[in-house]
Amino acid sequence: MNHKGLFVTFEGPDGSGKTTQIRKLAEELEKRGLPYVLTREPGGTEISDKIRAIILNPDNLRMADKTEILLYAASRSQHVEEKIQAALEEGKIVLCDRFVDASIAYQGYGLKQPIEMIRNINRFATGGLSPDRTYLFDVSPETGRSRMKGRSGPEAGVTRNAGDLDRIEQRALAYHVRVREGFLSLYRENRQRILLVNGENQPETVFNTVLADFDSVLKFWSE
Amino acid sequence: MNHKGLFVTFEGPDGSGKTTQIRKLAEELEKRGLPYVLTREPGGTEISDKIRAIILNPDNLRMADKTEILLYAASRSQHVEEKIQAALEEGKIVLCDRFVDASIAYQGYGLKQPIEMIRNINRFATGGLSPDRTYLFDVSPETGRSRMKGRSGPEAGVTRNAGDLDRIEQRALAYHVRVREGFLSLYRENRQRILLVNGENQPETVFNTVLADFDSVLKFWSE
Repeated sequence: MNHKGLFVTFEGPDGSGKTTQIRKLAEELEKRGLPYVLTREPGGTEISDKIRAIILNPDNLRMADKTEILLYAASRSQHVEEKIQAALEEGKIVLCDRFVDASIAYQGYGLKQPIEMIRNINRFATGGLSPDRTYLFDVSPETGRSRMKGRSGPEAGVTRNAGDLDRIEQRALAYHVRVREGFLSLYRENRQRILLVNGENQPETVFNTVLADFDSVLKFWSE
Repeated sequence: MNHKGLFVTFEGPDGSGKTTQIRKLAEELEKRGLPYVLTREPGGTEISDKIRAIILNPDNLRMADKTEILLYAASRSQHVEEKIQAALEEGKIVLCDRFVDASIAYQGYGLKQPIEMIRNINRFATGGLSPDRTYLFDVSPETGRSRMKGRSGPEAGVTRNAGDLDRIEQRALAYHVRVREGFLSLYRENRQRILLVNGENQPETVFNTVLADFDSVLKFWSE
């Protein structure tokens, strides 16, 4: 770890429960009075949110895959420089909903774009920053999709009705199958950093697993 | 040349006269009935124009240098895939106001960001597409700046009054001196591709130089 703080990311497909879990962990840190920052990608800063709106806008159907990769990286570099790095230097715990792993899974495996190039671009974008711990929530694409369809609510820059999906969510099932395979490959290559969590379980069960692991990470970090 | 069309770029600092010159050449092609596309960066497509608005917005003062590099590349990849490549495949002449050279001069030399990385990112963004001919208009930073201050008019996504400068134009003179040096280095490394034109001369004189060269390029291309 090359920073004072603790950088924890939550990864997994839409509908895997990662956003519920990250909120639960944030509430727990709040209760314990630990200094933390809760953030998400794409987005997390004013400029990143403007980029997020372009990425997710369902009207931007003609977006080239390379453009998507570069926009995610642009949003991320701003997020790291303006928010994440600053919080880590202050010794805070940063909980981040999605990071570089998501780009490799979605654009590399999902869109079949060159994985090494995505890694290089993101190494540049993040200045080489890597999470200290990553929780990867695995669900079948069918579970993810059926959970997404039940959702509603406004997204930054995206007007959304119940059942509406953003530009990325609209992609075919085969794409989401490849994304899942991508996440599982990342897990196999990074077992020290990534904890694989079964997202099919009940939220409370899932959170017990996350919290038990997080407590041991926290213990190691505090020492 | 790995495409049927002819790809010609116009480079140089703000106030170098490149936009006047590219318009004059477009008018000439129009008169001659030659098939051409006139376009510019950042921008050139609907998605690229949305990205352009984020890049140039004077409110986005906190933008990280890396974010700027990645946004330019994102805008460019969309522009190449959606517009430039298509026109070149149809055998058209593409006149483009700024391309990869501008990123190397502005972000590499101007902002002192890693030039090799900018090249790699842009090679990815463009799929390796390189101009067949580039006109580089050289003026002193003082000339460029004084010409910019006399301008007015609306820009895509940027409200502009006479004398107002966008986020990039607002930078200090030392930055613009480095940008000029960057353009001149690019010229020295690419004398076969780049024609260096003295932008301090009168527009008509400058255009005679451009047109004479362009006619010989056109002759070689048609053969």
